[in-house]
Amino acid sequence: MTDTLNTVDGAGRAVEASAADVVAELTLEEKASLTSGADFWSTKAVDRVGLPKIVMTDGPHGVRLQRADSDHLGIGDSVPATCFPPAVALGSSFDADLLERVGSALGEEAQAEGVGVLLGPGINIKRSPLCGRNFEYLSEDPLVSGVLGSALVRGLQSQGVGASLKHFAANNQEADRMRVSADIDERPLREIYLRGFQRVVEDAQPWTVMCSYNRINGVYASEDPWLLTSVLRDEWGFEGLVVSDWGAVNDRVSALVAGLDLEMPASGGRTEAQVVAAVQDGSLDEAALDLAALRNVELVQKAVRNARADASYEVDAHHALAREVAGASVVLLKNEGGVLPVAPEASVAVIGELARTPRYQGAGSSQINPTKLDNALDEIRALAADGADVAFAAGYAEDGSSSAELTAEAVAAASEASTVLLFLGVPAAQESEGFDRDDLELPAVQLELLEAVLAANANVVVVLSNGGVVRLSGFADRVPAIVEGWLLGQAGGGAIADVLYGAVNPSGRLTETIPVRLADSPAYLDFPGEHSHVRYGEGLFVGYRWYDARELEVTYPFGHGLSYTSFEYADASATASADGVAVRVTVTNTGDRDGAEVVQVYTALPGSAVVRAPRELKGFAKVALAAGESREVEVAVRRADLAYWDTRVDRWVVEGGAYEVSVGASSRDIRSVVSVDVEGDAVHVPLTMNSSIGELIAHPVAGPIVMQAFSAGSGDGPDVGGALLADPAMFKMMASFPIGRLASFPGMPVSIEQVEQLIAASNAQG
Amino acid sequence: MTDTLNTVDGAGRAVEASAADVVAELTLEEKASLTSGADFWSTKAVDRVGLPKIVMTDGPHGVRLQRADSDHLGIGDSVPATCFPPAVALGSSFDADLLERVGSALGEEAQAEGVGVLLGPGINIKRSPLCGRNFEYLSEDPLVSGVLGSALVRGLQSQGVGASLKHFAANNQEADRMRVSADIDERPLREIYLRGFQRVVEDAQPWTVMCSYNRINGVYASEDPWLLTSVLRDEWGFEGLVVSDWGAVNDRVSALVAGLDLEMPASGGRTEAQVVAAVQDGSLDEAALDLAALRNVELVQKAVRNARADASYEVDAHHALAREVAGASVVLLKNEGGVLPVAPEASVAVIGELARTPRYQGAGSSQINPTKLDNALDEIRALAADGADVAFAAGYAEDGSSSAELTAEAVAAASEASTVLLFLGVPAAQESEGFDRDDLELPAVQLELLEAVLAANANVVVVLSNGGVVRLSGFADRVPAIVEGWLLGQAGGGAIADVLYGAVNPSGRLTETIPVRLADSPAYLDFPGEHSHVRYGEGLFVGYRWYDARELEVTYPFGHGLSYTSFEYADASATASADGVAVRVTVTNTGDRDGAEVVQVYTALPGSAVVRAPRELKGFAKVALAAGESREVEVAVRRADLAYWDTRVDRWVVEGGAYEVSVGASSRDIRSVVSVDVEGDAVHVPLTMNSSIGELIAHPVAGPIVMQAFSAGSGDGPDVGGALLADPAMFKMMASFPIGRLASFPGMPVSIEQVEQLIAASNAQG
Repeated sequence: MTDTLNTVDGAGRAVEASAADVVAELTLEEKASLTSGADFWSTKAVDRVGLPKIVMTDGPHGVRLQRADSDHLGIGDSVPATCFPPAVALGSSFDADLLERVGSALGEEAQAEGVGVLLGPGINIKRSPLCGRNFEYLSEDPLVSGVLGSALVRGLQSQGVGASLKHFAANNQEADRMRVSADIDERPLREIYLRGFQRVVEDAQPWTVMCSYNRINGVYASEDPWLLTSVLRDEWGFEGLVVSDWGAVNDRVSALVAGLDLEMPASGGRTEAQVVAAVQDGSLDEAALDLAALRNVELVQKAVRNARADASYEVDAHHALAREVAGASVVLLKNEGGVLPVAPEASVAVIGELARTPRYQGAGSSQINPTKLDNALDEIRALAADGADVAFAAGYAEDGSSSAELTAEAVAAASEASTVLLFLGVPAAQESEGFDRDDLELPAVQLELLEAVLAANANVVVVLSNGGVVRLSGFADRVPAIVEGWLLGQAGGGAIADVLYGAVNPSGRLTETIPVRLADSPAYLDFPGEHSHVRYGEGLFVGYRWYDARELEVTYPFGHGLSYTSFEYADASATASADGVAVRVTVTNTGDRDGAEVVQVYTALPGSAVVRAPRELKGFAKVALAAGESREVEVAVRRADLAYWDTRVDRWVVEGGAYEVSVGASSRDIRSVVSVDVEGDAVHVPLTMNSSIGELIAHPVAGPIVMQAFSAGSGDGPDVGGALLADPAMFKMMASFPIGRLASFPGMPVSIEQVEQLIAASNAQG
Repeated sequence: MTDTLNTVDGAGRAVEASAADVVAELTLEEKASLTSGADFWSTKAVDRVGLPKIVMTDGPHGVRLQRADSDHLGIGDSVPATCFPPAVALGSSFDADLLERVGSALGEEAQAEGVGVLLGPGINIKRSPLCGRNFEYLSEDPLVSGVLGSALVRGLQSQGVGASLKHFAANNQEADRMRVSADIDERPLREIYLRGFQRVVEDAQPWTVMCSYNRINGVYASEDPWLLTSVLRDEWGFEGLVVSDWGAVNDRVSALVAGLDLEMPASGGRTEAQVVAAVQDGSLDEAALDLAALRNVELVQKAVRNARADASYEVDAHHALAREVAGASVVLLKNEGGVLPVAPEASVAVIGELARTPRYQGAGSSQINPTKLDNALDEIRALAADGADVAFAAGYAEDGSSSAELTAEAVAAASEASTVLLFLGVPAAQESEGFDRDDLELPAVQLELLEAVLAANANVVVVLSNGGVVRLSGFADRVPAIVEGWLLGQAGGGAIADVLYGAVNPSGRLTETIPVRLADSPAYLDFPGEHSHVRYGEGLFVGYRWYDARELEVTYPFGHGLSYTSFEYADASATASADGVAVRVTVTNTGDRDGAEVVQVYTALPGSAVVRAPRELKGFAKVALAAGESREVEVAVRRADLAYWDTRVDRWVVEGGAYEVSVGASSRDIRSVVSVDVEGDAVHVPLTMNSSIGELIAHPVAGPIVMQAFSAGSGDGPDVGGALLADPAMFKMMASFPIGRLASFPGMPVSIEQVEQLIAASNAQG
């Protein structure tokens, strides 16, 4: 459909040959040229050998193909494409199959536009609810991010279009994002911030991974060999190409060495020249350049071989899919007294400009020029019965301002209706790539409108449009229903109407906690850091892990979401095997409507030797059940997901013990807790002179010998060993003393040399 | 009084000579020998040159001189000494003059026992209420720790006895204390954990500083040249000797190089040989050894020259001082309906074994063998009027157990009395050096007793004995009075009676917050760490800084404490000068009893460029006021105390602006807030290619030039500069882009070379 097709004239030769053969044919300059883009969105072709360029475009929830004459930086006009719901909504569906279908549809559109790689999905963890780009991310939980991110990649790549898993890694804020060092300890880095990436790489092999702008523990992601090579490739087995986020390269040669294969966008030849010079002066091993060139050739080959020049897509069908997905993503937070669904014949007042002028996506590089755009007001009128009274009052203006007149209209409309559908949301100017929010508050104008409307009619359904969570604690207990509509894409208006009128039974669940107040949130005191450093002080305790561990009240917990029907859980069980733990539970739709439940499995290990959250999500399943239907659901918890990162041995370790398996409908609505014994991995930590007395005594070989030495007393001087054994308080006080240092004290029953021998013997045997 | 006098026969020569001359006379082996102890408590003499040994003993709240035949490790018998209140109580007095008098008394006792250095004070920050050694520390706040620690050092050294400021540094837990790395960011390390040490060193020049067992950011305190030399000596001007905590040396040679002058206790010659070998093989510069030897000679000289062979002290006078200090340290947490003070003729039931068998100090190396020991029961009977009914019931046994009979006795006694004085506390076995507490709970047996007693008589005064804070939220709202008695030393029984009967008007204030629950406390999720690392994830937000910033309810806030009279504040003002800020406030004793108020001054800087707590204590004054008396109190806030540690330039910086000065009676009982303008320090951070567009535009020189370039547009290609200027949202999104990276994008209005020139020119001018 455009002139940016992956295939260009004369491309055949280098596309059909083996990538290694192509690289072998290239000059040093040609290889270097491949490692930076040609312009903003294209890779460089090498016409001499018939290697074409390919086009990459922003995603992740639509194909944002920039027109040639735009400003390139993300605000300009782009080719129309279906604006699917952004990740904040997609995640709430908790539905991997649905995300795979969305991925596939995105792939079709990318093919139709001649796009080889779509820059998504974004799966960064929502560390703080303030992060300006949270609308582009899936969850505060790495399992949700990993499972749903994999599905999207699978769907996209099933169409022969490459994904770009981003932003790798720990890009959890917009403030100072190009420089800030995310200072994270090893366990949270591994268990929270990298774990989702690991799952997507291992399960779905995205064609590309996009490194992030920020630094991690002081090192730019774009030039971190540990991140881009040791972890990503050596540990996880990534086989694709690493591309920089646009402008993320700080030092091109360091980046290349670290494993950054492709710099985007173009540098006007500047950095290619640096690469050539570095090879020539011997500071860069040409083999590193060859490897990067190889991966670039492989990517281009994959894209070109899979390109379908005649591809097209059905705009209407994709719009319908966007509506279906949006409907599955809406989260019904509260519904007291069955105020929802609205009966078709009910008299309703739709209040709020957002019902007429929807917010359906966030600002920045992901902003799609939609093929169509629904609004909730029209769709509500379409679903209401003929003759039913559907009044509308803007309540506030499009620019966010209000007036006595607007308020009066809204109050009048509310007074005359049986039900008020009040649309509130975060203004577009507050939710964008590039900066974070300052607070979690809805606009004061809207909250004042809410109070005025509530005073006129208590039967208010609040419908929310927001990319990041907002504080609801100011009114959640005073309205009968709240519908979390997130940003729902171009068909969101219809989806909202579907949910409000019961055409769709809501089945979305929160992938992030809605806290009572910002001050309760885990990163409150150190987000977004200062002087280009941000300490992830909450460690492992991100999202619900924090609220649960700190025993904090929340407005709505992680995993929460209501349905128009109800579900019962029975007969939960958990069975361990070499693969992990199979959790089974029978779920029954006990209401009179068909609906879908998200069964969630959390684990804990009471008495663990390491710090753990009280509950960690380890599996989930979305189950559609007809009214009255009952089904046994199996959720497979992978053994790898039970592991923690052991900093003593620098690897994943499954700790043995009786795991507590909690099955429920949210992190705080646990319906059943069962226990399952899991065998642990062996971890051998050798004894050293710095091992403590307590550790020595606990050691199978060293222990008895130490006890014997202590009881034997000292030949001369005071009997310290005897004193230790005789006094439990004394022993408790001294148990953490390193044996090597205690042994050097005056009057000790053993010598340094004896301890050294003991340790060597124990390590040899134990 | 003993044979461990500082002066020995023939000591004269090396004591009178200059230390440098003495060192010059020593052999390599002799110099090395000086850098480790002779045994557990003595330095090594060098008889050849007439250099005697000196004795160091544990403190900090008494002189714990070990008898020669004991086990040496801290549980054995020691020479009787006055057990003054431990630091937890001393701190609560908020009275620097009193601490100076205690220090002086400790000095007298040390002189009498021939002790040259007393190992104290301990001023580590109470990071977690669980730390087993909190009873040995002064506060959760560095200013309190620093001011009161300095007073104690001044008093002690006024008697010619050296202090040993400990445990330097960041030894904030007992768990794994010999190995654990306290992983702390630069600002909290400087502003919270080192700041108290800095104040004591700068204000009081302790003869010695004791390095701690633990590591800081991976490096053992005992071998950290940054800590022991760069910070302690080069920055703070420390002139004394650094001694290891007993057993803290991991590698003797590394420690020596780092600035650890004296290893304690003896290593049996092993480490001295390592030092000699290192000098001989050239791996250790002999100058480093000379320096350590010099400091050892200087210390011995100071101790010997100041030793008074005929020194003695008045046991009774010191006991009386211990009672006075204890009385000033008791914190009256609650007193509803004037239940306290008890009238002499009132019928009271004293309940709780702790009233008869007091807990008055913690376990471990600080445990004193007291010269006398009062208990509250006897002292209450002494203060009650003749014929007044003072019943006693143990309520629970000395071992903590209970029985139906003990409970029945207690209930019966409570029923018959007008007022119940119920003594509760933490068992001795739970509060010790060497391990931490598991929770903040009083024993279940005691809480059950409380309920039984309350059911019989609501007029219950709870009197607490505890070294670390306990959770009071379970009953604080159901008893009319709570007296926090901490651990009060050997005369604590009398002091408690004095307060209960009004012989002493309580004037102690909390130096640490009493939280509603452990889960609210700042270090809850990462204390005490795992695998020998503990992340100080709460950063600057320690103690009240955390509770205030997180907007958490507390049971009793930092600085809180009641009196039997009342105080009013008026006419607060703050005046800035080059020295800092002088805060003045008129305080009036509005009641009918003499009493003392602790006036507290907190500051904040709204809109600060760096993260700050909502309130930070920057000054305090304890003011005694007769009934009806009014006085203007001046609290001088030092300019240095307004500074934050600027990580960009690695130094203290006073930020300019309108500081909010809060004057009050606790961190949450602010009586007056005034504003004062403080001129800031100049901080010059040069522009670089990584400076952001926003930073460039804000720069006085570069800003106008960049704006000009952007408005001029691009010669060819898209006009990105124009687009940025035209769209505020776009500009906000791009403001954090480093100029160097943006300039390399296609179509930019300026070249890399132009930006380099601009930056150079701006730095030259700006």
